[in-house]
Amino acid sequence: MADVSAKAVTRRVAIAGGSIRLGAKAFALLEQGKLPKGDPLPMAEIAGIQAAKQTPSLIPLCHPISLNRVLIHSVLRPADHAVELFCVAEIAEKTGVEMEALTGLSVALLTIWDLTKPVNAALEITGQRLLYKSGGKSGTWVHPDGLPEEVEAILKAL
Amino acid sequence: MADVSAKAVTRRVAIAGGSIRLGAKAFALLEQGKLPKGDPLPMAEIAGIQAAKQTPSLIPLCHPISLNRVLIHSVLRPADHAVELFCVAEIAEKTGVEMEALTGLSVALLTIWDLTKPVNAALEITGQRLLYKSGGKSGTWVHPDGLPEEVEAILKAL
Amino acid sequence: MADVSAKAVTRRVAIAGGSIRLGAKAFALLEQGKLPKGDPLPMAEIAGIQAAKQTPSLIPLCHPISLNRVLIHSVLRPADHAVELFCVAEIAEKTGVEMEALTGLSVALLTIWDLTKPVNAALEITGQRLLYKSGGKSGTWVHPDGLPEEVEAILKAL
Amino acid sequence: MADVSAKAVTRRVAIAGGSIRLGAKAFALLEQGKLPKGDPLPMAEIAGIQAAKQTPSLIPLCHPISLNRVLIHSVLRPADHAVELFCVAEIAEKTGVEMEALTGLSVALLTIWDLTKPVNAALEITGQRLLYKSGGKSGTWVHPDGLPEEVEAILKAL
Amino acid sequence: MADVSAKAVTRRVAIAGGSIRLGAKAFALLEQGKLPKGDPLPMAEIAGIQAAKQTPSLIPLCHPISLNRVLIHSVLRPADHAVELFCVAEIAEKTGVEMEALTGLSVALLTIWDLTKPVNAALEITGQRLLYKSGGKSGTWVHPDGLPEEVEAILKAL
Amino acid sequence: MADVSAKAVTRRVAIAGGSIRLGAKAFALLEQGKLPKGDPLPMAEIAGIQAAKQTPSLIPLCHPISLNRVLIHSVLRPADHAVELFCVAEIAEKTGVEMEALTGLSVALLTIWDLTKPVNAALEITGQRLLYKSGGKSGTWVHPDGLPEEVEAILKAL
Repeated sequence: MADVSAKAVTRRVAIAGGSIRLGAKAFALLEQGKLPKGDPLPMAEIAGIQAAKQTPSLIPLCHPISLNRVLIHSVLRPADHAVELFCVAEIAEKTGVEMEALTGLSVALLTIWDLTKPVNAALEITGQRLLYKSGGKSGTWVHPDGLPEEVEAILKAL
Repeated sequence: MADVSAKAVTRRVAIAGGSIRLGAKAFALLEQGKLPKGDPLPMAEIAGIQAAKQTPSLIPLCHPISLNRVLIHSVLRPADHAVELFCVAEIAEKTGVEMEALTGLSVALLTIWDLTKPVNAALEITGQRLLYKSGGKSGTWVHPDGLPEEVEAILKAL
Repeated sequence: MADVSAKAVTRRVAIAGGSIRLGAKAFALLEQGKLPKGDPLPMAEIAGIQAAKQTPSLIPLCHPISLNRVLIHSVLRPADHAVELFCVAEIAEKTGVEMEALTGLSVALLTIWDLTKPVNAALEITGQRLLYKSGGKSGTWVHPDGLPEEVEAILKAL
Repeated sequence: MADVSAKAVTRRVAIAGGSIRLGAKAFALLEQGKLPKGDPLPMAEIAGIQAAKQTPSLIPLCHPISLNRVLIHSVLRPADHAVELFCVAEIAEKTGVEMEALTGLSVALLTIWDLTKPVNAALEITGQRLLYKSGGKSGTWVHPDGLPEEVEAILKAL
Repeated sequence: MADVSAKAVTRRVAIAGGSIRLGAKAFALLEQGKLPKGDPLPMAEIAGIQAAKQTPSLIPLCHPISLNRVLIHSVLRPADHAVELFCVAEIAEKTGVEMEALTGLSVALLTIWDLTKPVNAALEITGQRLLYKSGGKSGTWVHPDGLPEEVEAILKAL
Repeated sequence: MADVSAKAVTRRVAIAGGSIRLGAKAFALLEQGKLPKGDPLPMAEIAGIQAAKQTPSLIPLCHPISLNRVLIHSVLRPADHAVELFCVAEIAEKTGVEMEALTGLSVALLTIWDLTKPVNAALEITGQRLLYKSGGKSGTWVHPDGLPEEVEAILKAL
């Protein structure tokens, strides 16, 4: 773990995004609320929030930090039979919060996997990326591909 | 959590695979052993093993199980400036072990992210899939796209 | 921790029950789905399941065990402006599963507290009791006050 | 998890109280120091302190916070064959500390249960309430029923 | 984590021992029950039991196992101003239980350190060794230096 | 847990040191990189960092704190067939950081034990001491025996 004692405490936000492709059958059951273990989206949201708080015990060089806020936002993508999730993490600390956003995102996606796998074993989690971060020495950074409209809306509402 | 008391205890293996795209610069530094925080592959391996053991505390409906074995195997993919990881999990239990393999894989990939992000913020984790599972009522299952040669080799060595 | 090596492995079930009194205003908002932080019942269910799995790390002399099943069942009690929860835990182990059922119950009730406290600080958790246990040397035990009809129904469905 | 970045950092104290009814026989054994697994009160105190620190991993929407102090205070209530516990939690943070006090209290009571259950299965945990909180925007709050004399003494000694 | 699927399930016991040197002043205060934070021995016992259960989350290649029993036994050594601790761990599993005994021992010794350090900063933990193990393919093993009489007594009482 | 609300937030550093004696055979295999489970030093470093972050969940009266930095430094001692480890922990908090340095050290030493025990069961962990601490009311403290040259070098590089 690197020394962060000389860094400034600033408000920092990170937003990560990624998708899970369910296939036509599982996606239809999700849309209809008919998956055998129940609706995965509320459970994914809670699991992602809990996992973001566990980031320093999962990622070896992450510092223990006090998260001010974690949000999980889900969007159905019927064209891809996919669910896209965005995880927002916010702190007022000396270190960045990207890994918390990414860890919350990953575990939320895995939770959807766990509830969907009785229907389809050939699921796929794709496109996990950091989309946005602000605060700290390097200031605001936006992914070169730009932001999905849902993330623009999240940023306006923060 | 579903009732598993009536299920048989069988040897079960699951293998999950996925990649992280580092971009040309970070990939070159990884190959040359010059990433500023050190070589991410040994750390990713340990973090993935530790995370596989934490699966029931991360994924709400996963049962606590006794893992017999967890392995993380990494392959450099220069054409994609990517590292592909495979996570093997093995148990002798009443429930499947897919989520343990996937959780170990995800946290191993996130650990590479954490050690590579000082060089490139636009990393991407892609293609997380279950590749193989055996044991249990449904028997052996192989991903419709077939198995990468590295997974064939892992299976022969198990 | 006591020695359990000589005990027989049997299927064991424990059911614990208890209530949280919300007061008229918070209970009405819960019924109408208008609590400011959302519906506490699905979150309480997940938190209770997760906590039951953490019992050996919370209660010092509890043995680590492999839970076969955890269920949280909630019933609104309008006459008391209360929510009554039942937690069912089931194992096939050498030790009892009462503490897992009680720990799952307690954390589920605390989660309802957390989501209701913006409306009423004078909440009360009452009547946490073990209602039923089966398996092990002592066989089936039912609380002297008998079982609520909801628990009779749970037992029939197990 | 809600955004707390705009809240002020103030010293905040919360005190929660609740009881476990042991029945005549187990209460007498506790008073005489003859319970088969030893004196439950010191173990309950340690388990409660440890659990208060685990609150954010147990209660989904609780923020990770730095506790300044956790105390567990126990009082025997012979008229009810009960032990009443009080849990004091104190922080200097942006969020309240009620859930930490309540979680510490609940796990301390469950620990007494675990050590008493060999004597009596029909135990009961009752009357878990928030008794007092101070700090934050809403200032000092006292339960409408007033404070037990033991809590008045605790507050004087803080 | 190595593959243990082919190993036999046998009853296995491991006993580890080690000491903490307190110095004359702190040792006298411990003997007189006058250490400022209270008697460290009961707290060390509970912390050691809890830590033994956490071994697989602390030691990367340790398998998750179901401990049948953990005991911490303490002996005052006035000639050295030391406390010697023994930790007994017992399982019926495919893997050994040495690391659980050693982890329980280490954290119990560290807990004594934490409660003694206000009196003496120059404490020392010494002589942590595996003293005895039984079960598994290699059978019973005793440390070449033989067993302290206290461990002989523990083995007779198991 | 004691009240720390009135203490000042200062930069605090603690360094703990200790050794594991491997015996001639295991030490030679370690030097040659031929231990059957791989090189224990990188794994010990990661396990020690992770354990330092878990200190408040292991040591009952330790406060949850935000570590700024944890380092593990290893030195081979051929004359003793030993590995000596130093663990540096640094915070900007109201409480000391000795227990974090000692917990990181202990778990790092135990990890070397776990990877070396297939070769030698009669390992020994010795001489765990606090070597240096700075910050807080009591200022800088150095162990009466002075500092090893490696610790002098670590302090210069901080």
